[in-house]
Amino acid sequence: MVERLVVIGGDAAGMSAASQARKRRDGDDLSIVAFERGRSTSYSACGIPYWIAGTVTREADLISRSPEQHRANGIDVRTRHEVVGIDLDARVVHVRDLDAGADVTEPFDQLVYAAGSTPMRPPVEGIDAPGVYGVQVLDDGADLIRELDSGGVRRVVVVGGGYIGLEIAEACRVRKLDVTVVDRSETPVGTFDPDIGRFVADALRDLGIELVLGDGVAAVETGPDGRASRVRTASGRPLPADLVVLGLGVRPNVQLARAAGLPIGPSGGLVVDRRMRTPVDGVWAAGDCVESVHRLSGQRLVVALGTHANKQGRVAGVNLGGGYATFPGVIGTAVTKICDLEVARTGLSMQEADAAGYRYVTAFVDSTTRAGYFPGAKPIRVKLLAEKRTGRLLGAQVVGREGAAKRIDVLATAIWNEMSVDEVLSLDLSYAPPFAPVWDPVLIAARKAFEAVEADVRADVRAED
Amino acid sequence: MVERLVVIGGDAAGMSAASQARKRRDGDDLSIVAFERGRSTSYSACGIPYWIAGTVTREADLISRSPEQHRANGIDVRTRHEVVGIDLDARVVHVRDLDAGADVTEPFDQLVYAAGSTPMRPPVEGIDAPGVYGVQVLDDGADLIRELDSGGVRRVVVVGGGYIGLEIAEACRVRKLDVTVVDRSETPVGTFDPDIGRFVADALRDLGIELVLGDGVAAVETGPDGRASRVRTASGRPLPADLVVLGLGVRPNVQLARAAGLPIGPSGGLVVDRRMRTPVDGVWAAGDCVESVHRLSGQRLVVALGTHANKQGRVAGVNLGGGYATFPGVIGTAVTKICDLEVARTGLSMQEADAAGYRYVTAFVDSTTRAGYFPGAKPIRVKLLAEKRTGRLLGAQVVGREGAAKRIDVLATAIWNEMSVDEVLSLDLSYAPPFAPVWDPVLIAARKAFEAVEADVRADVRAED
Repeated sequence: MVERLVVIGGDAAGMSAASQARKRRDGDDLSIVAFERGRSTSYSACGIPYWIAGTVTREADLISRSPEQHRANGIDVRTRHEVVGIDLDARVVHVRDLDAGADVTEPFDQLVYAAGSTPMRPPVEGIDAPGVYGVQVLDDGADLIRELDSGGVRRVVVVGGGYIGLEIAEACRVRKLDVTVVDRSETPVGTFDPDIGRFVADALRDLGIELVLGDGVAAVETGPDGRASRVRTASGRPLPADLVVLGLGVRPNVQLARAAGLPIGPSGGLVVDRRMRTPVDGVWAAGDCVESVHRLSGQRLVVALGTHANKQGRVAGVNLGGGYATFPGVIGTAVTKICDLEVARTGLSMQEADAAGYRYVTAFVDSTTRAGYFPGAKPIRVKLLAEKRTGRLLGAQVVGREGAAKRIDVLATAIWNEMSVDEVLSLDLSYAPPFAPVWDPVLIAARKAFEAVEADVRADVRAED
Repeated sequence: MVERLVVIGGDAAGMSAASQARKRRDGDDLSIVAFERGRSTSYSACGIPYWIAGTVTREADLISRSPEQHRANGIDVRTRHEVVGIDLDARVVHVRDLDAGADVTEPFDQLVYAAGSTPMRPPVEGIDAPGVYGVQVLDDGADLIRELDSGGVRRVVVVGGGYIGLEIAEACRVRKLDVTVVDRSETPVGTFDPDIGRFVADALRDLGIELVLGDGVAAVETGPDGRASRVRTASGRPLPADLVVLGLGVRPNVQLARAAGLPIGPSGGLVVDRRMRTPVDGVWAAGDCVESVHRLSGQRLVVALGTHANKQGRVAGVNLGGGYATFPGVIGTAVTKICDLEVARTGLSMQEADAAGYRYVTAFVDSTTRAGYFPGAKPIRVKLLAEKRTGRLLGAQVVGREGAAKRIDVLATAIWNEMSVDEVLSLDLSYAPPFAPVWDPVLIAARKAFEAVEADVRADVRAED
């Protein structure tokens, strides 16, 4: 008998699951139907800001596998089909064909829930007015570009200074628009410590982006045409806007899952185990809509990143296909580029480490990306958090020009393996003058962190004497 | 009583040891005298090829700390002083003042032996003729540059296609000279597998460097003036040469240590423990002249790299200074740049893994350094070795354009922590389109290696049935 797999959501997580399952089980063993509300499948949402900026010129470039390609691969993809209900007892999903306007019912034996996420909208007046855009799916990007290409937009206000907000702010700046970013925090990218965030703030101002910090959004005011025309901040400041973009992050799309009775965790994401199984037999979930375990804090949280979505989808698909794979959690690694400033982090920020109950020391290093005497050496700043006493590396933040950000991956791998800063210091990392100083900034930072751990122990001993 | 420390060798290892010891113990507690045969201290030997090429313009740029700076720091550095004998019973070193021509005797309580290494010279006729250069210390670089600047050199033959040989070959090519590299192996940089080495060979030929592979050097023939004028290869081929550069690697400078009775390992390097102690009380050694433990093969070997010399010197100095630090071994990480081709490795090559008794599978990936659709994405090739059954990552080789090489550090950190390729696959590495495809080449390679491990297990099971 052919088992029936239904996939809800045609982007990274859903289609990775479908592809992996198909790779391991052929059509005589498993039928696969995937429903996608939009027009596209398997696209790079992370690439949208670069499409807006014109760095990427064609929408098709952002699509790694089209519906036709998936179909040729034995996956029955139905775009412009929105799943509107899941009946876990009857084992069917109810689906609306958005173009035909008709509803259909599709039975399943296995279900992959990969409905993704939606940009957060602050609950303020006018937030749903025309001219206010969230940028999450490829169609959002297309809508925004159409609006920008229309020529009627001169002033853009970005609400929220997270990664996506800043990337879109820069993209709009590349388009020579006036851009203002409003953020409640005193520094942008709140997932970084303020001393790193200030660097980012300076880089944004250098690009000509106006920052309104420590201030939230109170209302979006509309003009006579009903369109957004002004953002009013919590402090009362009016910010004229021909276009408002939401950059406050996203929330998981779990409404359907919740309605069907699938458990939602305190983080707001679907509860899954390491194999991406929900507690309901034969029902899997992956991507922006699920919660992951943070390996350092032990907390469950939702992290909406394409890289996790791909991995989680693969894990679901491998297991569905009869193999064994796990998603063993996250450690909060992220990177972005603001003009030529690279900004990356992994592990816990100070605020996160405090919240998790860690006590720690910090170390801070300013160095260069190549041997100091080597042409093209660029400044780089590395900040590390190491646990008190054990010296365990808890977090790292890197900010710098060319060649800076990728160094975060070494620190991420070190954190993943629960290395102490002392151990990091001994790592056999590559060295040649065009690539690094003989003491790589990462190693200097580890050395300083180790010294800080030792100094802290000495201070404790003295205090006890 | 003031303890007396004598350091033999004023480059990375020796001066790191001296500096760390000084940092922890002041002049009332420890006197420090360092003897250096050359004119300079604490210089970057790795930077010499870039100085030859003109990328680095001033010799002083290669010096991280001059004798004067060390003296100001409380370290009595004596340059142009060659230690000619060590008496471990009398606890003195005999030293020749090269400029004054006088001999002195210096007593010590603690001794750091950091005499470095010397370029290997094949035992063939003419190898010591004028016009044959090894490039190891800063003075060698100065001599070579003087020769090249004289205008009498048009044709350069580099004997040996290791890192330093290739870097100098490229430097000479930058100077518009005719360059030929002779190497016994069928591909250059013999520490890489041939399939990666062929890439390097192509890149060198693209630069206009002639390669004579699978052929050794039988003799250096001299002209009427007694200078090297031609290299004759083992196969009898004559290679005209105005200048011959040795790129066969280096051997540790252990003559003095051996004569003094310090034990030399089978690798030819000095035997030290993890704290850089020789078996003789109060005698330490560090840098190119000592042997290290390879963490994967368990073998002891000599690895002459500035990064190890710095770390080992630091470890010796910390311990000397009353602290605790260890050098826990190497895993064979190395990187070089040939024009815009970056070449890096870590762990074991196939040959090394075979020799160590491992059985393994390999995986090979061609990908790009950024999201495929992102402007500036460059090709990158990753090869991985994973142990049969366990899937433990044993080795990695990366070759590619911009942004390729530094990825080796993630793999080095993974190998250091004995991760399996399956575990590597789950790592939370940074992702954004300007930096990587959503599946980083490293992760794709890990996935392929994992699949190869699984396929190998299945093949074994079938074979057993």
